Amino acid sequence: MSEPTTRRAAELAERAAGLDAADPLAGLRKRFTLPDGVVYLDGNSLGALPAGVPERVAEVVSREWGTELIRSWSSGTWWTAPERIGDRIAPLVGAAPGQVVVGDSTSVNLFKALVGAARLAGPGRTELLVDASTFPTDGYIAASAARMTGLTAVPVDPSRAAAAMGERTAAVLLNHVDYRSGRLHDLPGLTRAAHAAGALAVWDLCHSAGALPVGLDAHGVDFAVGCTYKYLNGGPGSPAYLYVAERHQEGFDSPLPGWNGHAEPFAMTPEYAPAAGAVRGRVGTPDILSMLALEAALDAWDGVEVEAVRAKSLALTDFFLECVAAYVPQGRVESVTPAAHAERGSQVSLRTEGARAVMDELIARGVIGDFRAPDVLRFGFTPLYVGFADAERAARTLGHVFG
Amino acid sequence: MSEPTTRRAAELAERAAGLDAADPLAGLRKRFTLPDGVVYLDGNSLGALPAGVPERVAEVVSREWGTELIRSWSSGTWWTAPERIGDRIAPLVGAAPGQVVVGDSTSVNLFKALVGAARLAGPGRTELLVDASTFPTDGYIAASAARMTGLTAVPVDPSRAAAAMGERTAAVLLNHVDYRSGRLHDLPGLTRAAHAAGALAVWDLCHSAGALPVGLDAHGVDFAVGCTYKYLNGGPGSPAYLYVAERHQEGFDSPLPGWNGHAEPFAMTPEYAPAAGAVRGRVGTPDILSMLALEAALDAWDGVEVEAVRAKSLALTDFFLECVAAYVPQGRVESVTPAAHAERGSQVSLRTEGARAVMDELIARGVIGDFRAPDVLRFGFTPLYVGFADAERAARTLGHVFG
Repeated sequence: MSEPTTRRAAELAERAAGLDAADPLAGLRKRFTLPDGVVYLDGNSLGALPAGVPERVAEVVSREWGTELIRSWSSGTWWTAPERIGDRIAPLVGAAPGQVVVGDSTSVNLFKALVGAARLAGPGRTELLVDASTFPTDGYIAASAARMTGLTAVPVDPSRAAAAMGERTAAVLLNHVDYRSGRLHDLPGLTRAAHAAGALAVWDLCHSAGALPVGLDAHGVDFAVGCTYKYLNGGPGSPAYLYVAERHQEGFDSPLPGWNGHAEPFAMTPEYAPAAGAVRGRVGTPDILSMLALEAALDAWDGVEVEAVRAKSLALTDFFLECVAAYVPQGRVESVTPAAHAERGSQVSLRTEGARAVMDELIARGVIGDFRAPDVLRFGFTPLYVGFADAERAARTLGHVFG
Repeated sequence: MSEPTTRRAAELAERAAGLDAADPLAGLRKRFTLPDGVVYLDGNSLGALPAGVPERVAEVVSREWGTELIRSWSSGTWWTAPERIGDRIAPLVGAAPGQVVVGDSTSVNLFKALVGAARLAGPGRTELLVDASTFPTDGYIAASAARMTGLTAVPVDPSRAAAAMGERTAAVLLNHVDYRSGRLHDLPGLTRAAHAAGALAVWDLCHSAGALPVGLDAHGVDFAVGCTYKYLNGGPGSPAYLYVAERHQEGFDSPLPGWNGHAEPFAMTPEYAPAAGAVRGRVGTPDILSMLALEAALDAWDGVEVEAVRAKSLALTDFFLECVAAYVPQGRVESVTPAAHAERGSQVSLRTEGARAVMDELIARGVIGDFRAPDVLRFGFTPLYVGFADAERAARTLGHVFG
């Protein structure tokens, strides 16, 4: 580095140290196990390992399964895990208890939510509007849900979604934060617009829950789904969740009426009688190892307010962008993440030529982000365990890669 | 016990010791961790813990997730787990490689299989025949699959299923072994009958796979599903599997076209293009902790032939029934499991008054079976870790409870 650059680096490193020292959430990092020497900016893809998880999983495997065996189903914590863990997630997405149930993948929950929404829609409502920039599985599942309920799936750019809603709209599926660009969509406004059009609003929270306030109840969202392995740190492929607003629960007609969602699952009756509440969203036997790993992982949130997380997230991404501007030669990267706080999730996506090779090189130097085709470097900021010095080092390393 | 009973008990205990000494599978028990002093006859509900699982799970959690983090998705064993583990299960159900994929619950896989079968059925085929004595979730899911594909679900007793099949039959869903009675249904004959009627045969293998030969390929089964937490010992709620016969894979049109079943999942294209082979049955991100626990659990099958397991299973249930006849006062229990080997699964179900209290008492005395409403004591025999002395002790304890 040239001398002025070195001076600028020293200044930014000092700023980072000061920001970390003043960070009220800095102490939370010790709730996680992270490898030495790594800056982990991919927690928006796979969250880090919370410190209490290995011990809890070992206990579930060796004692609850190995020793207690079947007795853990009747006397232990297993059977009610989906709704109990749902109630742990609920405050993180602004939901009162009894509306969130954990289990299955995001895709499967989306199918339940969209079919459920389609069946609640009024007569003459033939269209399912779907965020055209969505993570693709949402579009694939929406097409299937539409096909199987007699609707037409209509792709729409989120910026034009409100204008596209009308008397034919049954429901609209939107992403709270776009997985590629990191753009935060206007959940309150778009939900209001859906309701004004007489449609239901279904939100995918995969890239927002645990990073920023969602306010499902406050904004009157109808259905929502999300995964738990990103900002909620549940582990690889940990079960997803389904939110069904209380006012829709009685009418929620799931396309996957498994025995776990039955009002009396052990009566083993031939007729399906759906359970009341969020439990109706359950399907088959819950995946206990992953469920209870997730439950232990959620301990990392004890005493943490999502609002404080959001404040740190914005400060982190602001600071990272400032460092990128300082370290990366002009013209080499372009941020596709909105600069406005109101439109920014908890990631920074930089477009660059040869993005895949750049990311490989960054990872080789200990800065882990990810690559999204065709040309995006994605850096996720997870305020529970990422600090300002991490952001500075990541940007500085990126500068070296281009240097 | 009276003196003749004591003599009979000594004789049965000696027989049991001899049978255990001659059992070629006896050595497999050390592949499992079982609590001392317990006779575990509920492996048909939750299989015992295979010895290698705790260490493998700890490695997945601490090293693969905790240290390798996101890199485990690209360079490790995670991404291909559903089809790789499917190929481990395949020989246990008589399937050539490439036809079994692991993931989701049995209920969800059943939905894929039934909708897939309905969509492959010829025109004019409007009925889905469903085993009326089935584990209830199968009936609930079948009703939903029928409703969503324009079919009518028609309950049928398995003994009359062949006669009920006709030109309106799209597909028939049957259980290989009935969960309550332990009756083994004629998979080859009923599959032939379905095909003779121009219908597809969908089998639920939850209570047979891992206990007896299934022969999916040999008997031309079209679709099958099964769980992995019973005789396959995958752990509580471990992921289920879906079998799609190779000849149907190209036409298999899944109702849950998630991104993991896409031909190019990381291309993130807006249009769904299904992958070739069993992979098409994948939906969302696989649940890695449970998946890899299951994979490690399947090591217990190394070098084990299902035919040998079946032979021991029949010998165990025969011997248990003999011991029950010797120990339990006449008229107190009635076996609802068929006596004929060709009709018996790997469990013995005894009907008795006050069955729930009887089972509670048995469990208090260290013999773990389970209760199925309204009046059934269910004893599952898992030949990998249950021996003849276990069967004798279980029957003797049952005699004491009635004594």
